[in-house]
Amino acid sequence: MIFVPEIIEKKKRGKKLSREEIEFLIKGYVEGEIPDYQMAAFLMAVYFRGMDEEETTYLTLAMASSGERVDLSKIDGIKVDKHSSGGIADTTTLVLIPLVASCGVRAAKMSGRGLGHTGGTIDKLESIPGFKVELSQDEFVENVNRIGAAITGQSKNLVPADKKLYALRDVTATVDSIPLIASSIMSKKIAGGADKIVLDVKFGRGAFMKTYEEAKALAELMVKIGNLAGKETVAFVTDMDQPLGLAIGNSIEVIEAIETLKGNGHEDLVRLCLELGSEMLLLAGEYKEKEEAENALKENIKNGRALTKLKEIIAAQGGDERVIEDYSLLPKAKYTLEVYPGNEGYIKEIDALRLGLTAMKLGAGRQKKEDNIDLGVGIWIYKKVGDFAEKDKPLARILANDREKLNWAVKEVVESFLLTGEYVPKRNVIWAKITGKEIIEYKVKVR
Amino acid sequence: MIFVPEIIEKKKRGKKLSREEIEFLIKGYVEGEIPDYQMAAFLMAVYFRGMDEEETTYLTLAMASSGERVDLSKIDGIKVDKHSSGGIADTTTLVLIPLVASCGVRAAKMSGRGLGHTGGTIDKLESIPGFKVELSQDEFVENVNRIGAAITGQSKNLVPADKKLYALRDVTATVDSIPLIASSIMSKKIAGGADKIVLDVKFGRGAFMKTYEEAKALAELMVKIGNLAGKETVAFVTDMDQPLGLAIGNSIEVIEAIETLKGNGHEDLVRLCLELGSEMLLLAGEYKEKEEAENALKENIKNGRALTKLKEIIAAQGGDERVIEDYSLLPKAKYTLEVYPGNEGYIKEIDALRLGLTAMKLGAGRQKKEDNIDLGVGIWIYKKVGDFAEKDKPLARILANDREKLNWAVKEVVESFLLTGEYVPKRNVIWAKITGKEIIEYKVKVR
Repeated sequence: MIFVPEIIEKKKRGKKLSREEIEFLIKGYVEGEIPDYQMAAFLMAVYFRGMDEEETTYLTLAMASSGERVDLSKIDGIKVDKHSSGGIADTTTLVLIPLVASCGVRAAKMSGRGLGHTGGTIDKLESIPGFKVELSQDEFVENVNRIGAAITGQSKNLVPADKKLYALRDVTATVDSIPLIASSIMSKKIAGGADKIVLDVKFGRGAFMKTYEEAKALAELMVKIGNLAGKETVAFVTDMDQPLGLAIGNSIEVIEAIETLKGNGHEDLVRLCLELGSEMLLLAGEYKEKEEAENALKENIKNGRALTKLKEIIAAQGGDERVIEDYSLLPKAKYTLEVYPGNEGYIKEIDALRLGLTAMKLGAGRQKKEDNIDLGVGIWIYKKVGDFAEKDKPLARILANDREKLNWAVKEVVESFLLTGEYVPKRNVIWAKITGKEIIEYKVKVR
Repeated sequence: MIFVPEIIEKKKRGKKLSREEIEFLIKGYVEGEIPDYQMAAFLMAVYFRGMDEEETTYLTLAMASSGERVDLSKIDGIKVDKHSSGGIADTTTLVLIPLVASCGVRAAKMSGRGLGHTGGTIDKLESIPGFKVELSQDEFVENVNRIGAAITGQSKNLVPADKKLYALRDVTATVDSIPLIASSIMSKKIAGGADKIVLDVKFGRGAFMKTYEEAKALAELMVKIGNLAGKETVAFVTDMDQPLGLAIGNSIEVIEAIETLKGNGHEDLVRLCLELGSEMLLLAGEYKEKEEAENALKENIKNGRALTKLKEIIAAQGGDERVIEDYSLLPKAKYTLEVYPGNEGYIKEIDALRLGLTAMKLGAGRQKKEDNIDLGVGIWIYKKVGDFAEKDKPLARILANDREKLNWAVKEVVESFLLTGEYVPKRNVIWAKITGKEIIEYKVKVR
């Protein structure tokens, strides 16, 4: 018989837990036989002692088995999932799904709603009039088979262990543990039914992981878990110290995604989409060479096929496809205001977190789970780190539905930009690529 | 407003908590507003990060204030309480209370029941026919005023915070944290109403603290807490690697206490009683010099006054005082068996824990809170470390009410003694004395 306090004690002493012990713990917790207080003590012990790759893999698999698993077997071909650890001005998914689908990869994407800064992919899609974000399992599979892509909200019963654990971690100060974060993400990816996984692990002020080293450690662990679980996994460690693209909001991020598919995307967002996208093409077996894959993606942006794919996805999910040409169909904010820098100079830093929180307070994100999102508000920035800010040219535009909030946001936005008289180089987007076989760190700028 | 996850986070990061935060936590927990799972995560963070003297004092005081406090103000003079961290063959309280009372110290002793090895003082006293172990507050105070001493069980509502916290620590592997142990003990001492406190902190195989260093750290912390709380506190760090006296059981420990008061006690038990007792006399202001105080105690053993005091205590609490002369009035075991060593030699070690657990399994202690104690069973040992064991002389006597258990216990008892051909010195009983002003470590044998 396994005795819970002995498992807690073992972890507390820094000893390795067996697969059996971890499964017992997760099963007992989900079934309500192990109380929250024992799990809370265990989670805090894990915070201090960690878990090795094997333990974290067992934890991940036990969690992935706690609810229903998505069955994607009726979709032909190799299914490649993509996950981002979340950031500011990051509309990558909305670009990437139609883009890779237009190149022949089956893109069956389950996304979440956002908590914090801005909405998740599902929230952003709700900006499109009529767009249905909750598909049944059958509709989801059928759409992917028919047009190559679909985006839906997560099944309610996907990884109940993670839902229960996350709610507990949130109130017991045990969120920031790398094995717990890794198992939370990977259990959902594994239960999600894809064959292969591409991860985008972000670091910096706008990300959950504040340093490159932490993000790299998390990425390495997740790649190991994925591969140990039999799903080929590749991770990228990417910059989120400044916003990725230029739009921070919901309908404006839809616009930025469309513009990117039209070939007008910001170089950083484009770089990330090409990097993740070409990896997805390679993993799906559509191409053998990275360069070939990347060229195919570039080509489909140029020739409009990627944009057409987005149109098809919108139409297939009941949305108004005219938004592609007519942005006035998307939710708008009542007030807009251009913000100017106090001085001129090179932009040294942009505080992504502060901009994200400002957008959230304007209404673009949720402070609490129950909050409604104001889809039309947000912040467009015009410059990124390394750009030169001129005194008489605006730095950013604020979109608000409340005059008071609009006025408050001006100072927040201006102060998020740190200017200097000296030349500042642009920041790398991609910092490292981690596969089951190697870790490539980009010491030199990749662009 | 104080937010619980922020307090947990603060402790998790190793930061110092304020008095306000600690009080908020304990008050909220006792009142049921802070759930077990948050407290469990907090306790595990304390296990890893510790608490400094000040934090532990605030915790202790907050706990001490959680229920009713015992009012000893109607008892004249300085009230000195004594606490032992618990051990094997430790009948010190039963010797000490009549002994110091016979020298003029008011001994108002509240004791607990035992969990584990053998019974607590209250269990042992129940061996005496008719002895009433639960006195009302008034009876307790009246007896102390009239005859100088009384021993009663702990009030049900004494430090409810400790009851609730201890029950939680027990099932979340958070028992072995020095600040948590210190606050648990000291909160009860402070709520117990005494003016001054003498602590006996044991270390070794038969004690909760396994090493001298841990016990010393605990003792130092408790002395600091006591003194910060305005109660002069002195602690002794004492040996519990082997049993203290010779009797491990309940009625046999009553016999050993009576024999000690008759002048026939084992030197180790006597040494500890004189050391703790003389400190109590000094703290109570009855004597100015240690030697004087110790001589007074020795004198009252010799002249029979200490034994008479025990008789008075028994009679005052409704017990049959004839047990002092007639041990056959105490509960007896059906079977007794003498145990012989396998070889001859000096006794190098005696595994106090193993003997304690053997006595427990014979019925002398509780494995679970609900268990009944078999008062007549136990183990008398005849030899201690440094003694020479001859092949044809018994090492110990086992008292049992179950033949099967009796036979099982033989091997346990024999194997608890480790013999060697080489000379072995006796072990020190007193290893250190800690006051608010100094720490005296006895590098040289004190006897």
